[in-house]
Amino acid sequence: MKDTVPTITTGPLPASRKVYLQGRIHDIRVPLREIEIATEENLRVYDSSGPYTDADRAVAIADGLPDVRGRWLLDRGDIESYAGRAVTSADNGFATGTRLTPAFPLSRPPLRARGDRAVTQLAYARAGVITPEMEFVAIRENEGRSAAYLRDGDAMGADLPDLVTPEFVRREIAEGRAIIPANINHRELEPMIIGRNFKVKINANIGNSAVTSSMEEEVEKMVWAIRWGADTVMDLSTGRNIHNIRDWIIRNAPVPIGTVPLYQALEKVGGVAEDLTWEIFRDTLIEQAEQGVDYFTIHAGVRLHMIPMTAKRVTGIVSRGGSIMAKWCLHHHRESFLYEHFDEICDIMRAYDVSFSLGDGLRPGSIADANDEAQFAELRTLGELTKIAWAKDCQVMIEGPGHVPMHKIKANMDEQLKHCDEAPFYTLGPLTTDIAPGYDHITSAIGAAMIGWFGTAMLCYVTPKEHLGLPDRDDVKTGVITYKLAAHAADLAKGHPGARLRDDAISRARFEFRWQDQFNIGLDPDTAREMHDETMPAEAHKLAHFCSMCGPKFCSMRISHDIRAEAEKQAGMERMAERFREEGALYLPADSVERVE
Amino acid sequence: MKDTVPTITTGPLPASRKVYLQGRIHDIRVPLREIEIATEENLRVYDSSGPYTDADRAVAIADGLPDVRGRWLLDRGDIESYAGRAVTSADNGFATGTRLTPAFPLSRPPLRARGDRAVTQLAYARAGVITPEMEFVAIRENEGRSAAYLRDGDAMGADLPDLVTPEFVRREIAEGRAIIPANINHRELEPMIIGRNFKVKINANIGNSAVTSSMEEEVEKMVWAIRWGADTVMDLSTGRNIHNIRDWIIRNAPVPIGTVPLYQALEKVGGVAEDLTWEIFRDTLIEQAEQGVDYFTIHAGVRLHMIPMTAKRVTGIVSRGGSIMAKWCLHHHRESFLYEHFDEICDIMRAYDVSFSLGDGLRPGSIADANDEAQFAELRTLGELTKIAWAKDCQVMIEGPGHVPMHKIKANMDEQLKHCDEAPFYTLGPLTTDIAPGYDHITSAIGAAMIGWFGTAMLCYVTPKEHLGLPDRDDVKTGVITYKLAAHAADLAKGHPGARLRDDAISRARFEFRWQDQFNIGLDPDTAREMHDETMPAEAHKLAHFCSMCGPKFCSMRISHDIRAEAEKQAGMERMAERFREEGALYLPADSVERVE
Repeated sequence: MKDTVPTITTGPLPASRKVYLQGRIHDIRVPLREIEIATEENLRVYDSSGPYTDADRAVAIADGLPDVRGRWLLDRGDIESYAGRAVTSADNGFATGTRLTPAFPLSRPPLRARGDRAVTQLAYARAGVITPEMEFVAIRENEGRSAAYLRDGDAMGADLPDLVTPEFVRREIAEGRAIIPANINHRELEPMIIGRNFKVKINANIGNSAVTSSMEEEVEKMVWAIRWGADTVMDLSTGRNIHNIRDWIIRNAPVPIGTVPLYQALEKVGGVAEDLTWEIFRDTLIEQAEQGVDYFTIHAGVRLHMIPMTAKRVTGIVSRGGSIMAKWCLHHHRESFLYEHFDEICDIMRAYDVSFSLGDGLRPGSIADANDEAQFAELRTLGELTKIAWAKDCQVMIEGPGHVPMHKIKANMDEQLKHCDEAPFYTLGPLTTDIAPGYDHITSAIGAAMIGWFGTAMLCYVTPKEHLGLPDRDDVKTGVITYKLAAHAADLAKGHPGARLRDDAISRARFEFRWQDQFNIGLDPDTAREMHDETMPAEAHKLAHFCSMCGPKFCSMRISHDIRAEAEKQAGMERMAERFREEGALYLPADSVERVE
Repeated sequence: MKDTVPTITTGPLPASRKVYLQGRIHDIRVPLREIEIATEENLRVYDSSGPYTDADRAVAIADGLPDVRGRWLLDRGDIESYAGRAVTSADNGFATGTRLTPAFPLSRPPLRARGDRAVTQLAYARAGVITPEMEFVAIRENEGRSAAYLRDGDAMGADLPDLVTPEFVRREIAEGRAIIPANINHRELEPMIIGRNFKVKINANIGNSAVTSSMEEEVEKMVWAIRWGADTVMDLSTGRNIHNIRDWIIRNAPVPIGTVPLYQALEKVGGVAEDLTWEIFRDTLIEQAEQGVDYFTIHAGVRLHMIPMTAKRVTGIVSRGGSIMAKWCLHHHRESFLYEHFDEICDIMRAYDVSFSLGDGLRPGSIADANDEAQFAELRTLGELTKIAWAKDCQVMIEGPGHVPMHKIKANMDEQLKHCDEAPFYTLGPLTTDIAPGYDHITSAIGAAMIGWFGTAMLCYVTPKEHLGLPDRDDVKTGVITYKLAAHAADLAKGHPGARLRDDAISRARFEFRWQDQFNIGLDPDTAREMHDETMPAEAHKLAHFCSMCGPKFCSMRISHDIRAEAEKQAGMERMAERFREEGALYLPADSVERVE
């Protein structure tokens, strides 16, 4: 634990600058990161890091980020502002005096739908409206490309267009295959899209624990996670001050923020699951919806008759939300208030456009429990709830496991697509073995890359501390980079039409001994540079046409260049190739030909 | 770089002791590691770490490990000892005086086959002989099990018996599907088997660089790598003193040692590829065979007509051996001496039972170059060479890529099986994206786990320093643990009949809050314990029925226990389940039933 208050990390990544693309339909500015490359065109990449990496922008967290969406929203005419719910002492866990985190200094009256209007992206999409949010994500997904870079991959049923158009986005949302989590009260948001036919996204979890952590710390965790590429951030805080800290986070977040409202509701009843009520939960939903939370994990799929199905499991119920609801159901011997009041939950979520992340409360917590009766029973219920939410114009994604051995991963995707009618899948890993505590970012990156290829739209990261403790700053970064590479591996395998641009750029840099470019194009330039400098620190070495691993004599890439030079000198590679094709045997000693053919 | 000479790491892993199982056919002692578990039977696991982790054995590297195999070998009657080749100054890169690493103190005359006898495991297996090596690996593979633990998986064509018998081993070797790399001059070896129908193995690379490193350092690197689970170690040294350092390594190695003899041959001609000759290469093979190297990477598949196929590649030729041979071929405008003299190479290897690791000199070094014409042309040649080697009774495995996106991995395995007639595949990763320097142990673990599932028999590790620098001690450990977990994920997916024992044991420990057991059963107990203690250092907390991540209120596993207790109190879980199945609707409010069904 550090003693000093962290400062917010700002400034561009190495050799990078922020560029903004203008909308055509709407007056929007879409951020990308441009990496400077020595002898080639600069490379534009997707950028979730917000204004924090813009050298031209000063950020002060007490001001929050600019209100970019307010105008878009109010233009629509179906949204009103109102007084909002009064913050109670219970919202902050009854923290008082110096233990109370100060409220965020800026307070705006919350927005909600007028009357019973649906103000969700799904409702607009169904009505044929292309919102600024939709155009924003369309431009963002293309990363500055004006055509496909190449088509190569096995899409596994995904439909990846050469270029994403606003109309394509609209259609995907209208059909429920994608969501833009964008609470109308999160006016600082840079919209992003989650769907099988878009780039695979990743989520990072943050959250204060029972031990108090300051709001600066939590804001910095979020900023740090998005700096390295987190597309959304879930605030899983428990304990005191969660209302106020959440406000600080959202006001400073350019990415969608997700929560599990059940956690705060449980705090409000002193941690006694049985004491939870629909009224407390409902009030918590409205509280968080007014703050601007973009998606809620709702564990409405845990039904009473499924609980005995977990009796013989090796690891029981491992979802916090799932176990809380199971306990409640069993104690009261009835279906959960989440299930019984699902309609009303939908009504709240549609009034703010909070997206559903239907929680997998019965996900397996071990290889032994993967793909079992309880897990798939819940998944079918999640499919039923999806249809109800869609009928209410709510955006929906579905949470998935967990711990799953490689041979059982595909079935998870197939079942999800089947029962949830292609609503986006959002999985935690899955971990492909249980035996490596301390390395579960890796056991799970294997499963994440695979399920991403198969069609999962967003991957929830796992850090090295999984099962062991709370991730620190380094763990968060390791988790984010690990999941970025897994998501990218999935994009490559699916044949995303722009994915290989970055691989090819870094490979050319590698082959041409452009060390600085190799570092800068990579996901983590700082670590790559540090690792290189451990063995060969001198600046001059970064220009060397060989490296520390092999030295000049054994450098295959250097020799490859020699080979090309020699081959070109002799005849020209092309003509040589021709000659070999025509009279290949000329160069073979007779006995060797005979021997192998 | 450290200033102090490293000491050799010895002593058992936490809560572990070495046990030895006795042979039935032969007088052999097969080591396993037994992990003590608090409330369950102890868990026996595969153990490649040798006498270094045996609390009852003192190890002095100047003595070397005991000669366990001498008696087995000389009993056969087809092996003779002879004077051996004189060590030349060139063998050690002309190092002299204080720069010369001292020769290993113990010198035994080398062994070789009498006359033209084949003394390979393949020859014995074909003759119906079950050697001590075969019985040893049979016992070792079963890890103390007397039956299958469970059958669950998708074997992808592999044939995994409930228990491995010596006869099964013999048959697999006779049919070329597995090898036991075991040079008759590596008498310190604890034999292991590499084949698709056995546990997936991993290799770690070590090697001194041009910058001198001491023999203690190199021996410690090997000991360190096997401590964490490396099944074989490749010594990729270049530069001075490689002969003497190799001797120190082999005399202290309980695992097979592999080399690329071409590297030493190149040193002998001052690093000028064109100056290599068959005579120098042949002499180097004999030199290393007499020392006891268990497998040689031989890049005989790089043929002249294939070189132009690499002209348009993004990263050319990235195998060191491949690029050296390509340069030689192009310069001399003829097939390589490896290809032309392949018969003679076989004759040398069969006289010592050095296994072939047929090198993939044209493996892709980037996603762009994966599965290209050059790569698959070479693979077909490797298939032809396999048949020649088999005809000479030589054991063979085939090296594979490299950099391959997920959707192109399966084709690598399929082509290899087809063209190389199921000879074991031994792949480097493959890396599934190029964009994460600093994290290539992870980009490659994804590919390694998948190709392991598909049938690859051994995975060559990649460390975080790949593409950047020389791995240090921490990198070696990270690489080994990462590959152990990938290999294990592959075993699970294939449905290895014993694999899940360890996952289930750790998951039970997790569910029962047995923290110490959870650490000890994991692949890296030290790291798991350290990470846990960062957040909750107190000893008392290791007995706590919750942990630092969630605290008691949010602990799903604790709640799961409460749920079970409550359920049992109410009716007994089984009877409850029964009731729900029979009258499930009883508990549902009428409207919700209607709503979702």
